[in-house]
Amino acid sequence: MNALKLKPIAIDTYKENVAYLHRDCDIYQSQGFQALNKIEVYTESTDTQTAHAQVFATLNVADGKCIIAPGEIGLSEQVFKQFNQPEGTLVKVRHATQPQSLSYVHRKISGDRLEYPEYLEIIQDINANRYSKIEITAYLVGCAESEMDRDEVLYLTQAMINTGQRIDWNGSMVADKHCIGGIPGNRTSMLIMPIVATYGLLMPKTSSRAITSPAGSADTMEALAKVELDISELKKIVKKHGGCLAWGGTAKLAPVDDILITVERPLSMDSPGQMVASILSKKVAAGVTHLIIDIPVGPTAKMHSYSKATKLRKLFEYVGDSLGLHLEVIMTDGKQPIGSGVGPNLEARDIMNVLENTPNASQHLREKALQLSGRIIEFDAKVRAGQGYAIARDILESGRALEKFNAIIDAQGRNPNPLTFGTLTYDVPAPKTGTVTAINNFIVAHIARLAGAPIDKASGLFIHKKVGDRVVQGEALYTIYAEFEADFVFAKEAAALDSGVEVHAE
Amino acid sequence: MNALKLKPIAIDTYKENVAYLHRDCDIYQSQGFQALNKIEVYTESTDTQTAHAQVFATLNVADGKCIIAPGEIGLSEQVFKQFNQPEGTLVKVRHATQPQSLSYVHRKISGDRLEYPEYLEIIQDINANRYSKIEITAYLVGCAESEMDRDEVLYLTQAMINTGQRIDWNGSMVADKHCIGGIPGNRTSMLIMPIVATYGLLMPKTSSRAITSPAGSADTMEALAKVELDISELKKIVKKHGGCLAWGGTAKLAPVDDILITVERPLSMDSPGQMVASILSKKVAAGVTHLIIDIPVGPTAKMHSYSKATKLRKLFEYVGDSLGLHLEVIMTDGKQPIGSGVGPNLEARDIMNVLENTPNASQHLREKALQLSGRIIEFDAKVRAGQGYAIARDILESGRALEKFNAIIDAQGRNPNPLTFGTLTYDVPAPKTGTVTAINNFIVAHIARLAGAPIDKASGLFIHKKVGDRVVQGEALYTIYAEFEADFVFAKEAAALDSGVEVHAE
Repeated sequence: MNALKLKPIAIDTYKENVAYLHRDCDIYQSQGFQALNKIEVYTESTDTQTAHAQVFATLNVADGKCIIAPGEIGLSEQVFKQFNQPEGTLVKVRHATQPQSLSYVHRKISGDRLEYPEYLEIIQDINANRYSKIEITAYLVGCAESEMDRDEVLYLTQAMINTGQRIDWNGSMVADKHCIGGIPGNRTSMLIMPIVATYGLLMPKTSSRAITSPAGSADTMEALAKVELDISELKKIVKKHGGCLAWGGTAKLAPVDDILITVERPLSMDSPGQMVASILSKKVAAGVTHLIIDIPVGPTAKMHSYSKATKLRKLFEYVGDSLGLHLEVIMTDGKQPIGSGVGPNLEARDIMNVLENTPNASQHLREKALQLSGRIIEFDAKVRAGQGYAIARDILESGRALEKFNAIIDAQGRNPNPLTFGTLTYDVPAPKTGTVTAINNFIVAHIARLAGAPIDKASGLFIHKKVGDRVVQGEALYTIYAEFEADFVFAKEAAALDSGVEVHAE
Repeated sequence: MNALKLKPIAIDTYKENVAYLHRDCDIYQSQGFQALNKIEVYTESTDTQTAHAQVFATLNVADGKCIIAPGEIGLSEQVFKQFNQPEGTLVKVRHATQPQSLSYVHRKISGDRLEYPEYLEIIQDINANRYSKIEITAYLVGCAESEMDRDEVLYLTQAMINTGQRIDWNGSMVADKHCIGGIPGNRTSMLIMPIVATYGLLMPKTSSRAITSPAGSADTMEALAKVELDISELKKIVKKHGGCLAWGGTAKLAPVDDILITVERPLSMDSPGQMVASILSKKVAAGVTHLIIDIPVGPTAKMHSYSKATKLRKLFEYVGDSLGLHLEVIMTDGKQPIGSGVGPNLEARDIMNVLENTPNASQHLREKALQLSGRIIEFDAKVRAGQGYAIARDILESGRALEKFNAIIDAQGRNPNPLTFGTLTYDVPAPKTGTVTAINNFIVAHIARLAGAPIDKASGLFIHKKVGDRVVQGEALYTIYAEFEADFVFAKEAAALDSGVEVHAE
């Protein structure tokens, strides 16, 4: 078989690996390739000692002269980087054989349960880019909802932990908290982390970016500091300051999660088994020993009822206990957004207001962060149950949490630009005079996303009225912030259709 | 918002719609687009009377100068053709809004049942290219296996019928037969069609191409004649000759099926509900009134047991009866391949041998075709039950079926090239002297696919020994035919590992 000359193609295909061959290329013709075939591009070393480079990609076929010539193989920007070979290298291509683990996915779809070695093989293959997007989707949907039993979730978690790096903290007690999400403005981690670190526990917080929400903790922290830390940076910062807030993706902790998210996000999928495995695998890989899980419950939270939330709690407990974690699940009030801001920059401002003890800080956000911080501090054997809250409050009010947070921001790499907010703004008016009786989390999140969050960090909304607040007809319930006209129009239209805020006249 | 200049991009992305924007393009930057976003490209007509053109695509972002310039929007070959606007047309782009019907897919994944209007909306959106590959996969996997009840399968079938054209035969009796597949060399349609047409019934046979098998009827017929007939060609041929064998895709009958196949094929998915809906929707859209469904049963057939096959039979009957079809399900012997050839050209030769009544014709294939033809002929009220077989045999033996088939081949457009067979051949030897006791359909199909079928029509295998035949050690069980060295090696390796043929020594 003849070799092909490697050429980078200046096309950004994000997480989708694409390779380009010319239609008149001998190899394209002789090998019976077709567009959208999965192919393997590899180097063959002359001596058998050198490991060969290898990458999997979906084939696009180019005609004409400007993209690629016969005798060349093009790789899109991401794949070229992954392959990591110089332009002009002689490489070979062949049909990628289907990963064996796809047969386990088919078994899962037909209702079988899988064992640890099967989950491990699936996760390793996905992590090695051997699965196409279609195949990852089949895996995710096949495992969705109640289709995995608790041992399968444990196996999956173990498989995800064992496909990536792990951090060893030499026996220190390492604390963390994680929320299952679904509540806008619920950005407590960025308050808990500096409080707990000030108290003296290690808290190497890793977060994902938003999957279906208008902001993840990593997106919000990124408004203030660099969050793409590799493991050695992360360790150095945590050893020195006691805490950090990094994006889990770059740290290579349970890295398969970041591939799965590229399918989960466009599909808005977030199934219980996958959620528990994603959260706990990242925590164990980060070396966490003591963990608080926050499950908000409310009519428009991810968990609508205590019975559903209890089922999820038991799944967290079962997997956590089996992995040797000290894990406590706390069910919290999820009937409305927590802070006032929704969207990365607006949420970051909320955080700073609480840390700075300004009078206009969101009391709701402050209270919740202190409660959870207290529970983490009580993991320390020296602290009597019930005393954690007061310790946390003292750390916050004294300004020491702010000082700690600033030190950590500087250590991670402070974003020199001040927080900005969308220049297109619109006040959504109260339809009548009365009392706010409910705020729909889904609708608020949806409108914030339409406004541009989380990709556009300055967009989102700011809530002026919470449940129980009195409003006068025409008064602003919340303000929409957007940067781009089209987003602004979409968000306003959606809010006009249903603002998500219910007001009852007295 | 500024307009962009339309440019065709010479990249073949098959059934995946891809659009290209330059990273420095104002619109890319101002709209917050990202690679892999789903976008809508559309024209805005100056007067409101003209319908605007519109197409959905996945965004790739280009850097450098050679692919696209800022201010232009590129469309891959397929999308450019779909969009059907001249190069240089000023067009606009925006984020594609997620189809509302995706929320039904999510409900299906969580275990809900859907109603007809919901299936209709899903099918119409898929047919309009509003679903990405990921979303189609979520739909297919969500509906897979036992997840649809029989009314849902009926709704889906009706939705597929009503999303496409229908043929009206002015009240004539229109017959057809369809096999659920899974048995290599089971190419009876190409024999039944000319026999039934000679008898005097209309049989406008539409077939799909292979999904997971080494050849579909459309692939095999294509070895002999053009199968891409539009509805008017198809009607003309059937009115004149009584029959045809066309690829269902080009006829625009339940066309969504051909989009679904682009995901089903790489995933090797073929769930009962989707199968029944695909088959029956094509038949009803083609105007079929009387239908025989062939369900092969055997340890390596799609249906392993009579109880599983009976469940499927009842699903066919329920949906067929509800649609007003005269439908009969026949369970046949699926314990081994039917004809001797496996792969388009090798199967086409089998067909011609039976029609030409040559002594080396596959008796197995001939018998099965006559049985099924007889059952169809007995749909005619004039024929007494049990007499159909003799009528069919008479038509075949007299040479009238061959004459009819040749007329139909000429009418569809005869392939002027003679049938060729892969030049790389290998005889798989019997491991010992004894009797063939079993042939594994999966393994035989898999080896034929490795050899290159169905994409490479000349590849596949030819079976010399069937169940019950005596063999001497070293004698050829079957011959592998391949065109390309790599395929040949893969197929030989697989056959060496497990030939799929069991031989027991006396």
